[in-house]
Order: sequence, then C-alpha cells, then structure tokens
Amino acid sequence: MLVGTSHAGNIGACARAMKTMGLRRLVLVAPQQFPDPEATARAVGAEDVLSDAVVCASLDEAIADCQLVVGTSARDRRIPWPQLAPDEAAERLIRAGHDQRVAVLFGRERTGLSNDELDRCQLLVNIPTDPDFSSLNLAAAAQVLAYELRRAFLRGRPSPPAEAEPLGEPPATAADIQRFYAHLESVLTETGFLDPANPRLLMRRLMRLFNRVELTANEVNILRGVLTAVSQYQNHRRES
Amino acid sequence: MLVGTSHAGNIGACARAMKTMGLRRLVLVAPQQFPDPEATARAVGAEDVLSDAVVCASLDEAIADCQLVVGTSARDRRIPWPQLAPDEAAERLIRAGHDQRVAVLFGRERTGLSNDELDRCQLLVNIPTDPDFSSLNLAAAAQVLAYELRRAFLRGRPSPPAEAEPLGEPPATAADIQRFYAHLESVLTETGFLDPANPRLLMRRLMRLFNRVELTANEVNILRGVLTAVSQYQNHRRES
Repeated sequence: MLVGTSHAGNIGACARAMKTMGLRRLVLVAPQQFPDPEATARAVGAEDVLSDAVVCASLDEAIADCQLVVGTSARDRRIPWPQLAPDEAAERLIRAGHDQRVAVLFGRERTGLSNDELDRCQLLVNIPTDPDFSSLNLAAAAQVLAYELRRAFLRGRPSPPAEAEPLGEPPATAADIQRFYAHLESVLTETGFLDPANPRLLMRRLMRLFNRVELTANEVNILRGVLTAVSQYQNHRRES
Repeated sequence: MLVGTSHAGNIGACARAMKTMGLRRLVLVAPQQFPDPEATARAVGAEDVLSDAVVCASLDEAIADCQLVVGTSARDRRIPWPQLAPDEAAERLIRAGHDQRVAVLFGRERTGLSNDELDRCQLLVNIPTDPDFSSLNLAAAAQVLAYELRRAFLRGRPSPPAEAEPLGEPPATAADIQRFYAHLESVLTETGFLDPANPRLLMRRLMRLFNRVELTANEVNILRGVLTAVSQYQNHRRES
C-alpha cells in the first residue's frame, strides 16, 4: 500500500517492482495524481498491476480487513518501537499471509508515514542504510521489500497451520483494533487520566504497546468488555 | 559499473541507490548520454557520486585493475554457468573487498551484458524474480545488490549494544509485572467486571496477553497509572 504518494512515476515503478517479485495487489491511499501517464510509463510491463490497483481515500478504509499491518520507516531512536529488518518482516508477512490479510505500508516520498499512520502498524520495518545518507527512493524501498518477500516465499513455508495462529484464535482486524483504541481513549478521558487537550502522547504509548501484542479478535472483545465495565460502573455511581 | 546504459535517469537512480547503502565508486562504461540533467535529477542528493563517476570507453579499461568481477544476469539455463544468489555474491564481494579491487557489472536496460562481457566475470549473480515477469529495472537491480552488500558489510561487524534492548527501554522485572497483575485484578474486581469467586479464567487471558508483549518498566508504570486513575475516580465519586 502506497500512502499519499506525490510522484505518479513512483507508483508505476512500484507496480513494476512488485510484479517482478510475484506480487500483484497494489493499494493506493490518497495518491496525489492517479491514474497518470508517468505512472504507466514507469510500469513497463506491469500495467495490469496498475489497472487493478485499488484507490482508497483513507488509510483506515484501506487496512480495515487486514490482520497484520507492517509500516516502513526510517530508523528513529527517539521513540521506542520494535523495528524489524526486511528479511525478518518478510518472514512474518509470508507466514501470516497463509490465512490472514496482510499489508505493507509505504509513506510519502519526503515525509514517510505520519505518526497517526504508524500507530496503525503492528510492526515496523527499517531498511538498513548508510546513516549519513538514508534517502531511499520510494520504488527502491518497495523493490527491497518485494525482493525479501520473494526470498521468504521461496525459502518455503515451513510452519504448520498451527504456527500461523499461535493462540488458536483468529487475529483482530485493523478496524476492530481502531474501534478498541477509540473506546480506550474515551474511557481514559472519562476517568480523567487522559487530558483531552493533549491525548496523543499517552495514547501513542498505549497503542504501541497493544500493536506489539498482535491482539486476537477475542482479546479485543475482552478488553472492550473491561472498558465497558469501567464506564458503566462510573455511570451507575453517578446516577445513584 | 554500469555498462552501456541507455537512459541517463537510470544512472542517477543507481548513484542514489549506491549512496544509500554506503557505496561510492560508480564507473560508467560507454554510457549513451552522460552527464545529463535527467541523471542529476534522479540522483537526489547523490550528485557527488555522479560527479566522481569515472567514465570509460571500454569494459576492459574499466576492469583492468579489478581482482574480482561479478556480473549480473537474468537466469539462463541454456549455458551452464555458476550463478550466485545476491546474498552469496555480496558475501564474496565484501570478503574479497578487504584487500582486493572488486566490481559488480550491470548491463544494458534491454539486453543486459553481452556474452563477451559475461566472459570477463568470475562470478554471475542472479536476482530471483517471478519467472513470468523478470523485467527488473536497472536501478532496482542495483538497489537490491547494494542492499545485500550493505547487509553483508553489517554482518561482518559486531552488532551494536542497542540490540540488547530492542525498544530502547529496560524491560520490566517479573516482580513489576506481578504487582501490575495484582493491581489489575483488584481494579477489575472493584468495577464488578471480575467475579472474585472465579477470577482465574479472565485473569489468565489478560496475563497471557500482557506476557506476550514483553512490557518495559515504563509501560508497566503507565498501565498502573491508568489503573490508579480508574480506582481514584471511582473512590472520588463514592465519597462525593
């Protein structure tokens, strides 16, 4: 999935990068210009990937039914966040892709993915670059990830189906998780722990914690049950 | 080394691909057009690699002082020839590069390296692609090789101490975590969500969830802050 791409040529080059590695499902979130002749020119043989591309207005719409969302990002040591190497991320994606919907997000050419967008990722992947010049072209980054996905695919899929769902339960979808976060934010605001004027830092820490755990659908239900109980208990006391 | 490149834009993109991975020495063998504004435009920050590029009229001149020459080629099963995967080739190049001059050759956009040129290579490397669509862009191929060279270079160095704490924060101790679970159980009981007569099943599910995440000490503090806020809010309402 390409988020907010500025240069249509990069969309075409990404389509070509994907197709060389056997990938076909391209999703464009709010592209600045698409379709575009420059995209078609750079696709060179991957025009079918372009014409089948799904265009979404928002990231939430694009990832709603995805169960594993991996974001690409430059290394950032200011905020603790687990970052995988491309080969590790590819391994996870291929394994999960057996029976789950998975997505890899690539951000804007100049600014990458926003913090809000990164908050929606269970995992982050970082392509190792020279720290003095880490300006990877978007299509070049897509090519490296696509290459690692193909390598992981060719290495075979040794894990039995049981491995794919280590908890024996289906993972939550991105839409389930977004609803849980909204619920959490509202209950934390209600209790006064969260300052609605500045909710982001705390929510970000909590989202990063829960993104790491790769929640199952059932766990999201339990957590939302806890939130509902806290909220009802408070309302009950308020009324009595 | 880029041999007989047709599109100057690809030369710029290759320079950028190299520089992101810490490579600097670009050699152009009989480029169709260089220097060229399109090359400069696509270099985006790697103009120094372009301006330092050496232009040679012939491949023999370019590789004269090289001790290991690796050629990139599409897989060709007609002629038996040892072909390495990119990671294996990178390993060989980095190892030899300690005390030898090494080169990687990339051929023309449409036709690759000629048989005469391949004859000058000690090793061939092939990037695995989908056999149905193996049309890798020149700069994309250079990016994959440059990425594997960087990985091989980094593998050869001791891993940084930061690896020990992937989140950049110390992990919580078992005692911290047990205190958090006790706190969680008491607040959930207070809200009525947890039946004290039979708390185990729910607590087990929640503990299983939080154990999976490998909480940091800081995250445990945040979570306990949430629990305290919920509890105080309830007591406050009770007293008022």
